[in-house]
Amino acid sequence: MSEASRVDDGTALPTPGAEALKQAVRAQRDAALVFFARLAQGSQGHPGITRDTYGAGENFGHAVFADTAAAAGLELQRDAAANTYATWAGSDPSLPRILMGSHLDSVPHGGNFDGAAGVLAGLVVIESLRQLGLRPRRNVTVMGVRAEESVWFQVSYIGSRSALASLPPGALDSPRIDTGRPLASHIAECGGDPEALVRGERFLDPAAIRAFLEVHIEQAPSLVEAGYPLAICTGIPGNFRFPDVTVTGRHDHVGTPRRFRRDAAMAATAFAAALDAIWAEYEEAGTPVAMTFGRFHTDTAMHGMTTVPGAFHFSLDVRGYDVGVIAAIEARIPEIVARIEAERSVSFDFGARASAAVGLVDQVIFGELTEAAARLDIPAMPLGSPASHDAAAFAAAGVPTAMLFVRNENGSHNPLEQMDIDDFLDACTVLADWVARNAG
Amino acid sequence: MSEASRVDDGTALPTPGAEALKQAVRAQRDAALVFFARLAQGSQGHPGITRDTYGAGENFGHAVFADTAAAAGLELQRDAAANTYATWAGSDPSLPRILMGSHLDSVPHGGNFDGAAGVLAGLVVIESLRQLGLRPRRNVTVMGVRAEESVWFQVSYIGSRSALASLPPGALDSPRIDTGRPLASHIAECGGDPEALVRGERFLDPAAIRAFLEVHIEQAPSLVEAGYPLAICTGIPGNFRFPDVTVTGRHDHVGTPRRFRRDAAMAATAFAAALDAIWAEYEEAGTPVAMTFGRFHTDTAMHGMTTVPGAFHFSLDVRGYDVGVIAAIEARIPEIVARIEAERSVSFDFGARASAAVGLVDQVIFGELTEAAARLDIPAMPLGSPASHDAAAFAAAGVPTAMLFVRNENGSHNPLEQMDIDDFLDACTVLADWVARNAG
Repeated sequence: MSEASRVDDGTALPTPGAEALKQAVRAQRDAALVFFARLAQGSQGHPGITRDTYGAGENFGHAVFADTAAAAGLELQRDAAANTYATWAGSDPSLPRILMGSHLDSVPHGGNFDGAAGVLAGLVVIESLRQLGLRPRRNVTVMGVRAEESVWFQVSYIGSRSALASLPPGALDSPRIDTGRPLASHIAECGGDPEALVRGERFLDPAAIRAFLEVHIEQAPSLVEAGYPLAICTGIPGNFRFPDVTVTGRHDHVGTPRRFRRDAAMAATAFAAALDAIWAEYEEAGTPVAMTFGRFHTDTAMHGMTTVPGAFHFSLDVRGYDVGVIAAIEARIPEIVARIEAERSVSFDFGARASAAVGLVDQVIFGELTEAAARLDIPAMPLGSPASHDAAAFAAAGVPTAMLFVRNENGSHNPLEQMDIDDFLDACTVLADWVARNAG
Repeated sequence: MSEASRVDDGTALPTPGAEALKQAVRAQRDAALVFFARLAQGSQGHPGITRDTYGAGENFGHAVFADTAAAAGLELQRDAAANTYATWAGSDPSLPRILMGSHLDSVPHGGNFDGAAGVLAGLVVIESLRQLGLRPRRNVTVMGVRAEESVWFQVSYIGSRSALASLPPGALDSPRIDTGRPLASHIAECGGDPEALVRGERFLDPAAIRAFLEVHIEQAPSLVEAGYPLAICTGIPGNFRFPDVTVTGRHDHVGTPRRFRRDAAMAATAFAAALDAIWAEYEEAGTPVAMTFGRFHTDTAMHGMTTVPGAFHFSLDVRGYDVGVIAAIEARIPEIVARIEAERSVSFDFGARASAAVGLVDQVIFGELTEAAARLDIPAMPLGSPASHDAAAFAAAGVPTAMLFVRNENGSHNPLEQMDIDDFLDACTVLADWVARNAG
């Protein structure tokens, strides 16, 4: 089946031709549909999909991944954070391995493809290349990453940073937002070894990774708008976050005149409006940033139609691709807060602050993926990722990193997330081309 | 003890002198403190006071009122809405009676005086005049009103409008916000007769009421600001209300670019900011209105730090003293909503609308109370009520109506509500003076 069209410098792997590669990937279509259907059936969120981090939903995702990989004859491993690895053994395992993958958890009531598509893409790439009769020199590994969705523990990239031993201090004590139990306890329950993480043992040595490659559903409809099935990522945003900001004013009667009010909700509203205006400035200037007040609410135990809200709670996530831009936005917050506190007689308590570094994409791999798409005649555009991804944790650890995004008309983190399986297979094809050329 | 200083035209009641009246009211100080303490002990809201409408808290308030009135030898009655009446029988009960009172329910986690002070004021006035040896010709009745706090059933003035048979159609079907059970069921459980209310039977004939007089704690610190213990009300605001507005957008990933977002929280924020700006205009022009978003929140089942909010809920209460002003504000809402819906790709559903008429204060009684305060050397200022009160329901029914407000430095509808008992007794003294001059 394989037509060895050319051999890259320095590799011993014959590179499949465009048509053969496309056919081999297309042959995985039904298997891919079955994988997604099986995943969805076991992680219904009523509505949408819920694969809770270090919970039943995520465990189910890892079980499906491990089953599928084992059936394909791949070698399974599990690390101290309960990440799952499936490896296609190369002839020279001393070479830095190629790592593909993404996360298997989801937000509550999210979609089926966010994360899981990147895990399946790795399996599809391996199976396609095997069907073409190829055998790599390097190990090629698919990683099912734990705990990427920070909504559960309010910590970014738990699984990938555990594997790389770059988890921030104290992260293992973070309570899960629904159970209240600490991360360490959940990891142990899922078969991990939090003590090993505390000792700083790392499963993955960045120097032993040739590249980390992540396919991910696009989390906005930019590709639909532009008419492309695929994007090649130009960068992964860094962020700063305040998971639980409290505004304290005073509960008052509904008739209280404006000058006497200490309305926490209107103060939070003024703050959100000020940040939205800053965002609009950046948007107009063409600088991609994003600001999200995901939780934004009066105190449900105290609020009522005839009570001026004396307490308000919100989360804030601000992200961008440029460290300077992110820092400049954060630097404007104190003045805005001071003005609102003075005008509205309230006080803001920002609570804990979290942050994630900007994830830089490897420019060489970016160029190679762009060439691969052109060679394969698969339309692909460059696109900054609006979202955070595990790839950023690998990039921060010094691993050459790249990402591919698959078109999605309804956005992500919601039950309407939508992906055409052919778009997905296009991404797998581009990735398979790169792996074939670099695994030799 | 009584010094008959003069007799008003047309009355047979000797009017007590200022000093005697003050002393008689001051003699009720301990009884008043006991009444408030007993009420508070039985209606703790953790924090604050919760006397839930047609629930255990309000029932407890009525029981304390009835006990106290019975111990004072007053005649007790209960109407079909379970309002409680305590009457000091006059020598000629065919004359239109004087009605004093207020409500015995509270908001959740409110204060001890909001409502209850007006009921006790009636008892203090009667007991003080009795101690002075007076006997009225008219019946003098204290009414413990049910269900004034519309937070529970989202309907205004349920108790007073039931007594006056002016409840709006369908009100008896309104579900209580926490139990979900309809108003009629709660009324029956508290010993009332919802069937009689459905038949439109009225307990109080407006033509048979000489006046309705309500003492109430001030619900803002205007009196503290001005340095007065007491205010004489110039008017009670009317309002329009939307108890449950829903904004629907789309839940999206935290990284979704601004142009793709359908963020329900930011849309609601823009709406609240627009109304706040309108309020600021009126405030600058010196026109008293108030706008309150008491509930203002993302969907607690769906929200999270990394999800753009696709749903938002809020309540809105807009009030003023001028029908034209209130209508002008409401008329601006559709254009604001249309603009935000277009800009933010969301839709607003305002749900049910409720409203209450502006309550006009009787100008003659207002003047008499003003003169009484001056004669008694009690500092009092004129003040528009920022809040709605049962008095407005009586005014709407054609009953001559007046109100007195007592200083409160911490505002109302919160656990910090505060009232100096001497300020309260000042209000009772002014009211007793008016009753003495008009009950004869």
